[in-house]
Amino acid sequence: MATGDTYAFSPTTSRQDCHAYWFGPGMTSFVAAEGVRILGMYKFRANQRDLGSHVANASFMVSPVAHGMGVGKAMGQHCLTEARKAGYVAMQFNFVVSTNTGALSLWRTLGFSIVGTLPKAFKHQQLGYVDVHVMYRFLDDG
Amino acid sequence: MATGDTYAFSPTTSRQDCHAYWFGPGMTSFVAAEGVRILGMYKFRANQRDLGSHVANASFMVSPVAHGMGVGKAMGQHCLTEARKAGYVAMQFNFVVSTNTGALSLWRTLGFSIVGTLPKAFKHQQLGYVDVHVMYRFLDDG
Repeated sequence: MATGDTYAFSPTTSRQDCHAYWFGPGMTSFVAAEGVRILGMYKFRANQRDLGSHVANASFMVSPVAHGMGVGKAMGQHCLTEARKAGYVAMQFNFVVSTNTGALSLWRTLGFSIVGTLPKAFKHQQLGYVDVHVMYRFLDDG
Repeated sequence: MATGDTYAFSPTTSRQDCHAYWFGPGMTSFVAAEGVRILGMYKFRANQRDLGSHVANASFMVSPVAHGMGVGKAMGQHCLTEARKAGYVAMQFNFVVSTNTGALSLWRTLGFSIVGTLPKAFKHQQLGYVDVHVMYRFLDDG
């Protein structure tokens, strides 16, 4: 978040705002840890209410100290398993910044496809307005 | 909502839930009225926080008694004007049910394009799972 290049959150977002985002009502939240050290976290919940509630939405963060260790991939796989267990039939990412090539590549590896592109929907702190992708996959194919 | 064919809300959604949805924090809400009779309502707000907050999200409902009267179009045009005034640079609809041809046609007339399609993301009460479109337009071109 501090770099303002991957997440909608402002670098100055308060601890209270983050807490509400990650642990709000209807969310299932996990951390990746090595001993007592938190390396990443993710959450999922229904992307829409009621007649759209069979599709999960998930959000991930990996600690800068853990980049390159496979934490994102491990959390992604864990998330797919947990979302299936919870009865979801598909998973959607609403806001994958197009310049975040690491995330795009990881989500493709985990079976997600780009199903939409939001023109200039992210204000990248270095690059200005850049496109954002919506990614999606069904959960019933392993 | 009662027909369960256009909106994520369950036909049994409580009044309290609706109130929170239409008048929650950060929302700008309007009604279309003829005298004291409400014919429709809409709201808009930022679709994402902070670095995505230049894109508005809007939601509309037209009373069944007012179908065919142009209320949706009038509210859509009003919404575009109000969102521009509020400083938004684009507008996004997250959940336009693909079988809702009236809405699709109206939003196209008002300058929106389909920028994404979410496979089987809506549980239509007659047709089962159907696709949902994400629609988008910039606000600076009139």
